[in-house]
Amino acid sequence: MLTIWTYDWIPGGDKGPRGFVRDLRLRWACEEAKLDYVVKSTSFEDRGPDHFKRQPFGQIPFLEDGGITIFESGACLLYLANKSEVLMPRDKADAAETLQWTVAALNSFEMISVPWFFLGGSKKPDNPLSDWLEKRLGHIEGVLQDREWIAAAQFTVADIIMADVLRQTRAAGMPLRPIIQDYVHRICARPAFEKAYADQVAHFTAADKARSS
Amino acid sequence: MLTIWTYDWIPGGDKGPRGFVRDLRLRWACEEAKLDYVVKSTSFEDRGPDHFKRQPFGQIPFLEDGGITIFESGACLLYLANKSEVLMPRDKADAAETLQWTVAALNSFEMISVPWFFLGGSKKPDNPLSDWLEKRLGHIEGVLQDREWIAAAQFTVADIIMADVLRQTRAAGMPLRPIIQDYVHRICARPAFEKAYADQVAHFTAADKARSS
Repeated sequence: MLTIWTYDWIPGGDKGPRGFVRDLRLRWACEEAKLDYVVKSTSFEDRGPDHFKRQPFGQIPFLEDGGITIFESGACLLYLANKSEVLMPRDKADAAETLQWTVAALNSFEMISVPWFFLGGSKKPDNPLSDWLEKRLGHIEGVLQDREWIAAAQFTVADIIMADVLRQTRAAGMPLRPIIQDYVHRICARPAFEKAYADQVAHFTAADKARSS
Repeated sequence: MLTIWTYDWIPGGDKGPRGFVRDLRLRWACEEAKLDYVVKSTSFEDRGPDHFKRQPFGQIPFLEDGGITIFESGACLLYLANKSEVLMPRDKADAAETLQWTVAALNSFEMISVPWFFLGGSKKPDNPLSDWLEKRLGHIEGVLQDREWIAAAQFTVADIIMADVLRQTRAAGMPLRPIIQDYVHRICARPAFEKAYADQVAHFTAADKARSS
């Protein structure tokens, strides 16, 4: 049985972070691969030594699997991918392509999109990272032009991370080109995403009720 | 036989990028694991469709292994780690920890350090990413306080990527705290790093001579 750790609560609001917290990536992967999991909570407001011991940057998610604890959502996705070919095909070339695009989403795209968001996203008209982000979107558009999935000609864990970083970018106000928009729409129409999304929102909404009672 | 692809030439100068181009990570891993490899070049100045086909962002490095081509230095490192326990131990918990810290270097540290460098590094006194970068360095300092290697109580591919992103940050003008500085010094004193570094510098220096003749 896997345990996905997330915060016990986060602030609400129109544009998230509810529905965008990174535990969603792990829920989604488990749903796709039909892996048994439970979700447990750690305090958002009081991040003590026990939290930092399991996640040295004081963030979430982290994953427990028997005696193994692993943090970094990207690492957790690759860890889960070892458990199921639904998430990463076993053919060597396909596995390499899945790994490559998982890391590309983390280190070639999110490396720009997250700091861009941090600097104000589209609300900051002279955001110094906007041009770079647009350029990367242009490259990704070229890649997606003739493929349904980002890697290995099938749904993989790379689609989970790529679609997630793209929809976060859109939520921060960057319009997506039609080909990318179609891709995100297609990947996020999967029942596993919808369940993961609904479950995360329900988790934080229930925490609101507990706090106000 | 593995082929590491890099540029045929890059501009020189006091502070790099020579000695910091990311093919170094792959050379270093191959040297550590004693994997046979050759280095081939693609044009820095004319990046044509053939380059973008193999690396859709027009960057390097990418790796060839028989019929498999894989880009993203982080993905290449994890790919090479599958070939040798020198780079990633086979024990499940140790392998998970190695994966976790490899991704942490890419997605929790380099995600800030590279945009920080892009925005001017320490030359920009009001660099809007400096505080965030300092905070992450503080967390990493805490982790390194009582360990020699970043993961799995032994040298792994996670040390290659972590030491590399840290020394790049130092080169961009961010002073490293003593514990981190000692770590980088220790990891980069390894003969495999020294050979990879010298070989990369020699590769670009030879290209200068060819251009001027």
